[in-house]
Amino acid sequence: MFDIKTELTTNPKEKPAPEELGFGHFFSDHMFILDYTDGVGWHDPRIVPYQPISLDPSAMIFHYGQSVFEGLKAYVTVDNDALLFRADQNFKRLNRSNERLCIPAIDEELALEGLKQLVTVDRDWIPNNPGTSLYIRPFIIATEPNLGVHPSKKYHFIIIMSPSGSYYKEGINPVKILVEEQFVRAVKGGTGEAKTGGNYASALKGQEIASREGYAQTLWLDGKENKYIEEVGSMNIFFKINGIVITPALNGSILPGITRDSMIQVLKFKGIPVEERQISIDEVVEAHQNGTLEEVFGTGTAAVISPVGELKYLDDKMSINKGEIGEISQMLYDTLTGLQYGSIDDTFGWTIRL
Amino acid sequence: MFDIKTELTTNPKEKPAPEELGFGHFFSDHMFILDYTDGVGWHDPRIVPYQPISLDPSAMIFHYGQSVFEGLKAYVTVDNDALLFRADQNFKRLNRSNERLCIPAIDEELALEGLKQLVTVDRDWIPNNPGTSLYIRPFIIATEPNLGVHPSKKYHFIIIMSPSGSYYKEGINPVKILVEEQFVRAVKGGTGEAKTGGNYASALKGQEIASREGYAQTLWLDGKENKYIEEVGSMNIFFKINGIVITPALNGSILPGITRDSMIQVLKFKGIPVEERQISIDEVVEAHQNGTLEEVFGTGTAAVISPVGELKYLDDKMSINKGEIGEISQMLYDTLTGLQYGSIDDTFGWTIRL
Repeated sequence: MFDIKTELTTNPKEKPAPEELGFGHFFSDHMFILDYTDGVGWHDPRIVPYQPISLDPSAMIFHYGQSVFEGLKAYVTVDNDALLFRADQNFKRLNRSNERLCIPAIDEELALEGLKQLVTVDRDWIPNNPGTSLYIRPFIIATEPNLGVHPSKKYHFIIIMSPSGSYYKEGINPVKILVEEQFVRAVKGGTGEAKTGGNYASALKGQEIASREGYAQTLWLDGKENKYIEEVGSMNIFFKINGIVITPALNGSILPGITRDSMIQVLKFKGIPVEERQISIDEVVEAHQNGTLEEVFGTGTAAVISPVGELKYLDDKMSINKGEIGEISQMLYDTLTGLQYGSIDDTFGWTIRL
Repeated sequence: MFDIKTELTTNPKEKPAPEELGFGHFFSDHMFILDYTDGVGWHDPRIVPYQPISLDPSAMIFHYGQSVFEGLKAYVTVDNDALLFRADQNFKRLNRSNERLCIPAIDEELALEGLKQLVTVDRDWIPNNPGTSLYIRPFIIATEPNLGVHPSKKYHFIIIMSPSGSYYKEGINPVKILVEEQFVRAVKGGTGEAKTGGNYASALKGQEIASREGYAQTLWLDGKENKYIEEVGSMNIFFKINGIVITPALNGSILPGITRDSMIQVLKFKGIPVEERQISIDEVVEAHQNGTLEEVFGTGTAAVISPVGELKYLDDKMSINKGEIGEISQMLYDTLTGLQYGSIDDTFGWTIRL
């Protein structure tokens, strides 16, 4: 269907030991590349040995930040299949990010086919210890060698893959989160709902401040009123208040997380009340004061669920669920990882077995 | 003082003809590089032949946008010296951008010395036709090969140089500007006052909309209230209303332009009233309606002054000064370019002759 050329490495790397994996510093033997040239379109899809990228120092990615990316994972199932989770959604979102960043749309079918072939070629790079996976990073960078400020006329679309260790080696450990008051991640009309480098660069400062105070991540408030909850670190966030699960509605500045969407669908399927709506930090503080703030958790590809054990806002340190993982958080984690590792039947149609 | 190694090219490029120059697509024979390694600091300043940069596909610049840059120019003066304009201010601002983006500070003295040596090596690349100059682009990119979201542990600081044509080949031509209502460039607490790639990536969309409607640039309003004027395209903006020159005060989301600062100092020196303060689009519309909106102009390194002949806000097309360049705009342009090309005595102490 698609003509994807494959050049296999003649020099395969040694695979790291499972306990050394960590996140994002080992890479598999191959990568997928697709090029864009103005007037030609996207062309030359190919799988090649993992290798450095050589760019002119004036390449636009080095100057004007025109880039988008995605993050997803491949798993080895309990019956030893390779499995992708909602990969079609990642390429759909990549194209929405492309639209915001003035990058030409990719063919989502071609991208998915390229990914499947890449995972098949590097099948042995999916680690199979409990909780481990192959993290997949599709990304697009502007490569035209030109200092004029305009959308690039050349791009690389690349997929690289990194075997990753278990996020929770010693059981799920709730984290401490600091509500950021000074710095802002994104604002309506900006790039907050796109998965683009600038959002992450902008967020480093809040992360630095949180770390300095001994907190794992930053909870971002909205850029207009510094009042409404947006997201946490690089995850979406959920609150369980008085039996109802609430997550901020997608408003243009929040990343439309695929894990977020999966959680909402699982909650609905299980008959647990869930609301997507504006929620202010004051509402959270009040719920904590009157004892109805039952659970708080972040959701994202890396950790699936990251329960919040403490939330600090101004001088108020709120302990949540005695610093332990809540029932709903645990259920969601078990359900999603069960689907991802194939131990639960996929009635949602989310998984692709290779 | 600084040990900067120089490796000269053995294969010098042919210089483009002056009329072919344009902006940002030719580059001189050499570049300056300085590396950063965590635990070592900035090291190995060197001048090398202009050459591609080779990076691992997981290099952080490709994913998380951690980058800053500067823009300035070298000129050939009327008495045939090479001249730099306020270059020390560029490296000061680079370090302020570094602070916001969690990039380690550079030694400003070393950067300036590197730049001087680089301009000296490529002295013949400064074009000397009227209005031409050598555009200089210092930039820093995060190069650590790692997909974790954290400040990079490795960076390149690079200076490249591009001979540039006259911005105004046929006299200064006022441009048409569209006030953007939907998209936002930056918000207080974000990265607006830093010179970082993400701001430019974010702004491409507004630029695309403006172009489609036949406008040259976008005028950005503030991200909180969509009401106060921020900047135009990649320039700062000034309004002359009833004899007083007004420019938005630096508020955290506006780029602190060096040309902007120079204009303010020249205006004060000439005894022309100038105010840095919050100014709303409504105030501009009202001034236009009652006939007191006398001049509008953008300021920046590339064009020095870009007079605005038409401003469109909602359905209101405001013609400014009959679409012609105003007296103050012309005076500021003549003064700044006079200083830059050495035809006016530098009583400000802004110029560095090499």
